[in-house]
Amino acid sequence: MSQRIVVINPNSTVAVTRGMDAALAPLRLAGGPAIESLTLPEGPPGIETEEHVAAVVAPLCRLIGREEPEADAFVIACFSDPGLHAARERTGKPVFGIMEAGLTAALNLGAGVGIVAILDRSIPRHRRAYRAMGIDARIAGELALGIPVIELADERRTFARMLEVGAALRDAHGADVLVLGCAGMAQYRERLQDELRVPVIDPTQAAVGMALAAVRIGFRRRAR
Amino acid sequence: MSQRIVVINPNSTVAVTRGMDAALAPLRLAGGPAIESLTLPEGPPGIETEEHVAAVVAPLCRLIGREEPEADAFVIACFSDPGLHAARERTGKPVFGIMEAGLTAALNLGAGVGIVAILDRSIPRHRRAYRAMGIDARIAGELALGIPVIELADERRTFARMLEVGAALRDAHGADVLVLGCAGMAQYRERLQDELRVPVIDPTQAAVGMALAAVRIGFRRRAR
Amino acid sequence: MSQRIVVINPNSTVAVTRGMDAALAPLRLAGGPAIESLTLPEGPPGIETEEHVAAVVAPLCRLIGREEPEADAFVIACFSDPGLHAARERTGKPVFGIMEAGLTAALNLGAGVGIVAILDRSIPRHRRAYRAMGIDARIAGELALGIPVIELADERRTFARMLEVGAALRDAHGADVLVLGCAGMAQYRERLQDELRVPVIDPTQAAVGMALAAVRIGFRRRAR
Amino acid sequence: MSQRIVVINPNSTVAVTRGMDAALAPLRLAGGPAIESLTLPEGPPGIETEEHVAAVVAPLCRLIGREEPEADAFVIACFSDPGLHAARERTGKPVFGIMEAGLTAALNLGAGVGIVAILDRSIPRHRRAYRAMGIDARIAGELALGIPVIELADERRTFARMLEVGAALRDAHGADVLVLGCAGMAQYRERLQDELRVPVIDPTQAAVGMALAAVRIGFRRRAR
Amino acid sequence: MSQRIVVINPNSTVAVTRGMDAALAPLRLAGGPAIESLTLPEGPPGIETEEHVAAVVAPLCRLIGREEPEADAFVIACFSDPGLHAARERTGKPVFGIMEAGLTAALNLGAGVGIVAILDRSIPRHRRAYRAMGIDARIAGELALGIPVIELADERRTFARMLEVGAALRDAHGADVLVLGCAGMAQYRERLQDELRVPVIDPTQAAVGMALAAVRIGFRRRAR
Amino acid sequence: MSQRIVVINPNSTVAVTRGMDAALAPLRLAGGPAIESLTLPEGPPGIETEEHVAAVVAPLCRLIGREEPEADAFVIACFSDPGLHAARERTGKPVFGIMEAGLTAALNLGAGVGIVAILDRSIPRHRRAYRAMGIDARIAGELALGIPVIELADERRTFARMLEVGAALRDAHGADVLVLGCAGMAQYRERLQDELRVPVIDPTQAAVGMALAAVRIGFRRRAR
Repeated sequence: MSQRIVVINPNSTVAVTRGMDAALAPLRLAGGPAIESLTLPEGPPGIETEEHVAAVVAPLCRLIGREEPEADAFVIACFSDPGLHAARERTGKPVFGIMEAGLTAALNLGAGVGIVAILDRSIPRHRRAYRAMGIDARIAGELALGIPVIELADERRTFARMLEVGAALRDAHGADVLVLGCAGMAQYRERLQDELRVPVIDPTQAAVGMALAAVRIGFRRRAR
Repeated sequence: MSQRIVVINPNSTVAVTRGMDAALAPLRLAGGPAIESLTLPEGPPGIETEEHVAAVVAPLCRLIGREEPEADAFVIACFSDPGLHAARERTGKPVFGIMEAGLTAALNLGAGVGIVAILDRSIPRHRRAYRAMGIDARIAGELALGIPVIELADERRTFARMLEVGAALRDAHGADVLVLGCAGMAQYRERLQDELRVPVIDPTQAAVGMALAAVRIGFRRRAR
Repeated sequence: MSQRIVVINPNSTVAVTRGMDAALAPLRLAGGPAIESLTLPEGPPGIETEEHVAAVVAPLCRLIGREEPEADAFVIACFSDPGLHAARERTGKPVFGIMEAGLTAALNLGAGVGIVAILDRSIPRHRRAYRAMGIDARIAGELALGIPVIELADERRTFARMLEVGAALRDAHGADVLVLGCAGMAQYRERLQDELRVPVIDPTQAAVGMALAAVRIGFRRRAR
Repeated sequence: MSQRIVVINPNSTVAVTRGMDAALAPLRLAGGPAIESLTLPEGPPGIETEEHVAAVVAPLCRLIGREEPEADAFVIACFSDPGLHAARERTGKPVFGIMEAGLTAALNLGAGVGIVAILDRSIPRHRRAYRAMGIDARIAGELALGIPVIELADERRTFARMLEVGAALRDAHGADVLVLGCAGMAQYRERLQDELRVPVIDPTQAAVGMALAAVRIGFRRRAR
Repeated sequence: MSQRIVVINPNSTVAVTRGMDAALAPLRLAGGPAIESLTLPEGPPGIETEEHVAAVVAPLCRLIGREEPEADAFVIACFSDPGLHAARERTGKPVFGIMEAGLTAALNLGAGVGIVAILDRSIPRHRRAYRAMGIDARIAGELALGIPVIELADERRTFARMLEVGAALRDAHGADVLVLGCAGMAQYRERLQDELRVPVIDPTQAAVGMALAAVRIGFRRRAR
Repeated sequence: MSQRIVVINPNSTVAVTRGMDAALAPLRLAGGPAIESLTLPEGPPGIETEEHVAAVVAPLCRLIGREEPEADAFVIACFSDPGLHAARERTGKPVFGIMEAGLTAALNLGAGVGIVAILDRSIPRHRRAYRAMGIDARIAGELALGIPVIELADERRTFARMLEVGAALRDAHGADVLVLGCAGMAQYRERLQDELRVPVIDPTQAAVGMALAAVRIGFRRRAR
C-alpha cells in the first residue's frame, strides 16, 4: 500500500508552498512515499510574530486531523516550528518541524551551525528554541538578512545578502555548516553551498528527508 | 546517473553485516541510491574496547578512499562512531556515524532519549560522546543489557532483557524514545517498539535514512 | 494617577479566577496599584494541552490590547505561560508569566527548585520551558499529582497528595523550595509551606509581586 | 501588625545608603512594609575586593541577628551579594541579594541580560557567580565603566560612559535588558532606560521589590 | 635557592593540621620544595558554616601576606576553599584550594566524580561551587557521612560509614573516582581506595601535588 | 624501591621528544620518580589529522604494555590525547593526557583559559574534546598560530606570532591563563609568561607534574 508524507506550509502564501515543493523533487522516488505540499489557508501570508506562530496551531491541527487517515508522516514547514508539539499530541504518526529537523541534520554535517535568519527580531525566539532543544552548545551564530520582506523578491539582492551573511557566519563565527532559517529560500541553497563551500541546509528538504526515512523504517509515536 | 550509499560495518563479522543490511531493505527504493553494506575485513570480530575503536580507523579510511569514486555518502555502522571525524577529513562527501545519526534522529521523535547499551563499560565512553556532541541535556538515561556477548545469540533471552531495560528507561528514567546502542540489534527494533509503545530507533537505519536524504538533496562538505 | 495591574486567567473557569484573585489580597496596598483579575472568556475550561496553550494566545493578546491604555503591567496566570512572548510583542509594558516569575522568584528562596505539577504529560513541556529559560541547572525535580482533574475538587485528597509529592521532592530530589505548577492551587500554599517547612510559591502571587515592583519602579520595555 | 524590610548597605559610606534609599521611595506604600536602609559601620568605604566581600560577612550577620526580631525580610545591597548564604543560615526569614534579585528580575524583562560593571577586575568574580546561580546561558555580556572610583562623582562623565557601555551591550552583545552592577547608580537608572530604550534595572530596587512581595505573601525559609 | 610551599589549615585545630601534614610526607622530596603546614590560630575549631568560611578570609590573607616573602606557593586546606580568590588578589604566587585542586585532579582519574561530604548541609554550598567552577557535568554525586562531628573521632565507625557512602557513590551514582570532601580524612584514603577499588583522592594531597609541580615549573600569576 | 614515570611522545620525531624532555628537568627530584621520555617509533612525524590520532593508539598501547611492569604512571604527550582512554583500559596505573592535564591544571591558575593552537583545523577537534571533558564553560577562546609546520623552525617568527595570539586571547577573549596547545613549544613558555604577564602552561610539564604527585601519593585505577 502506498505511503504519503504531508508537508504543510502554515502560511497562506501559495507561492511559498510551490517554491518549497519544487525543492522536494529529489525526494520523490518511485516506490517511495508520495510527498504532498499543502497550504494552510487560515494562516497569515507570512509568519513573522509570536502571535502568528500561535494563531496557526488550531487550523494546522485540524488539517492534520483531517489528513491523518491518509498520511504516514507530517512536516510543518515554518522555521518557528509552530504547533509542533501540539501536532504530536494530536497524532501518533511522526511529525517533523523544519527547525528541529534542519538543525539536527546539521549536527551531522558540521561542527558549528550557523543560521541565516530573515528578521533580527526572530533571533531571540530562535535562541529560546535552541536552548529548549538542548543543542545550543553547537550553534556558532545566527545573523539576519535584515531585508524588508517586501524586498526579498529581489533575488539578486537577496542572494548577495545571503552570501554576505553566510560568509560572516563561516569566517567570523566559525560555522562550518549553514541552515537557512526560513521555509522559502530553497532556491538559493545550492548556489550558496557552491559559493561558500560549506554544506547549506534547506530545512524543509532536511525535514522531508527525515520523514521519508521515518515512514520507510516505520517509526511510531504513541500518546502515553 | 545512479547514486550509491556505502555502509561499512567496521567489525569483521559478516553475520552482523548481513543482519544490518537486511534491516535496510525499506530504504532501497527504485530510483533512489543503491545501498551497499560492506564488512571491514581488518576489523576485530566485535568492537568492544577503546583500542578496537582506534584500530579500525586506518583500514576504514582506506576502504573509504577506495570506494569514494563510486560513492555518494558513507555510513559507519558501529555505535562508537569509530573514525567518523577521520573519514570526514578523508572525503568531502557526507559521512554519517550511527551514534550521531541515531541520537539526532531521536531528538525529532521524543523529549528524552534512552539508550540500550550492550556493555556497562561502554557507558562512560558513550557519555563522553554525548557531551562532545553537545546534546547530553536530552539524554534521559542509558542502561546496559549486561549479557555476555556470547549469550546474545540466545534471541529469546536477549529480547526479554531488552524489554526489561527499555521499560526501565521509559518508566524510571522518563525516556520517550529509545535508541539501540549497537549496530546488530535491528531485528528486535519493531517488536520492541510494539511492546514498549515508544519509538525505537535502530541507529543504522536512521543513519542510512539520513544518508539517503543527503544524497538526494546534494549536501556537500568541503575540506577547509 | 493610580496604577493598575491586570491579571489574566487564560482559561474560562471563573472559579479559578476567583481563587487566584483571593490569594492576591496581601498584594493590594493603599497607594499601590490596583490588581484586577480577569477571566478570558474565549479560553477553554482548563489549559491541558499544547493546543490549548496556542488557542488562547489570540484572544489573550486582544484582551491585552483592549486593556493596555488603562494598565501598567500584565500577568498571564497559567503555568504554561501561554502567549507570554506574543504579549511582549503587543505591548511595551511589563508582562509576567507565572511560570517564569514563579521559578525566578524561587531562585531567591532556595538552592534546588521542586515543581508540583498536576499532570504527568505536562512535564516534558515544562522541561522544554526550563531549558528555554536557561535555568534548568537549578531544577531539582518535578512530580505530578496524578489526580484526574475532576477529582481535584476533593480538597482533602488533593492536599494529602500535594504533601506526598512535596515531601518526595524535598527528600528524594533535594528540593528546598517548591513551586506550585498551576494557577489554581493558591489555597494550599501556606499549609503546605507549614507542613513541609520549605518555602512554597504560588506562582500567581509571585508574578503579581514582581508586577507590583515593576510598576512602582517604572520598568519599561520597548519594541526594538 | 506592621511589617518591616531591612536593607543593608554593607559598605560604610552613608552617602551610598542615602542614594539607594531615595530610590526606594516608590516601594514605600501605605499599608505596606516599612523599608529601612541601614549602613554597616564596620564595612569598608567601598567593596572592591574579594577580601572586602568576606570582611563584611561577620558584622553583617551580627546586624541581621540584632534586627531579626523586628524584621520580616532582609536585602543585602551590594552587587557581590556578600554574606548572602551566611545570612540565610542565620535567619529563616527571606534574605535577598541584589545581584541575585536583579538578575532574576531581569530574566522576566528581556532575553539577554547585559551588566554594567564598575571595575574590570570584578567581572571574573561576577561570572563565577552567574555560573553558580545557573543562569549564565542568559547573560549576553558584561562591560565595565573603567572609571576610577574617585571620578565616579563626576555625574556627567559617569552617565556618558554608562550610555556608551549600555549601548555596546545592547548593540554588540545583543542585550535587551540591562542591570546596573552596583548598588550606587540608581540615580541614573531612569535616564539610561529612556535613552537606551531597553529596561534598566537598579538591583537594589529589584531586590526590595522582591522582598516586598515575599513579606506580603508570607514566604518562610526554615533551617533544615 | 630552596623553595617552600605553605599549606594553611584555616581552622584552629592543630590535630587536623598534624593529620593532613602527615599525609604530605610522600610529597617531601630531596631537592624539592619544603612543605610546611600552618594552623590559622584565628580560625574556628572547624569550618562548618558560611559564616566560618568568610570569617577566616581576613586572617588567612594576613598570614599569606606575612609568609609571602618566603613562600613559592600556597595551599588553602579546607574543602570550602575559603579565601581562595581573595588570596589570589593578595599574591601573584600560585594559590591552590583543595576543593578546586582535588576535583580537577579527579577529572584526570575517572569519568564521574563522587564526593564524600561530612555534613548534609554543606552539599548545596558545594554544588554552587561546582557550578561556579564550570565542572558540574562531571559530578556523579555527593553524599554526606551524616555523623555528628563529635563522633568522627570513632575511626571504626567513621571508616565503616565512609565505605558505605563510597560504595553508594560508586554503585548507585556511577562514580569511578572519589574525592574526600574534607581536609581531615587523609588517614582513610588508602584503605578506602583498596576496599572500593576506585581511586580515592585526599584533596590536600592533590593540591600540594599541584603546588609542587607549579613551584618547580615556575607558574606565575600577576595581579591584573 | 624507585618509581618511574614514562612519558610517551606519540610522534616519531626524536627532536620533539628531546625538547619536551628538557623541559621536564625541574620535575626530576632526588628521591622522586625517574621521568623517562620515549619516542613512539611507529608514530607519524607529527600528529596533525584525526587519522594520525587513531593510528598511534595501537603502538602506544603496546608500548605501555611493555613498559607497564617497570612504570608507575604514564603521560601521553600529544595535545590530542591520542589513546588516552584506550591506555586506561590497558593499565590500572594512572595515565595522563597532556590536553586533559594541561587544561585541568589551568583551571587552578585562572578564570578563563586561552589555548594557543598550531593549526586552525585542529580547533573543532579540540572543542569537541573540551565539551567531552565537561569544562567548556571555562574556555575563553582558542586561536591558531597559522604558521605552516615547516616554518615553525623559525623560532623568532614563531615566538612573535605566539605573542600576538596570546595577547589576543588575553585582551579580546578575556583569557587570564594560557595553555600551549602542542607538546613541542615548551621552550617558549617562560618567555611568553614573562611578556604576557599571565601564567602560561606547557601541557607536558603540567601532566608530568600531575603524574609525579599521583605516583608519590599512590593513586590506583582499577579496571571495573
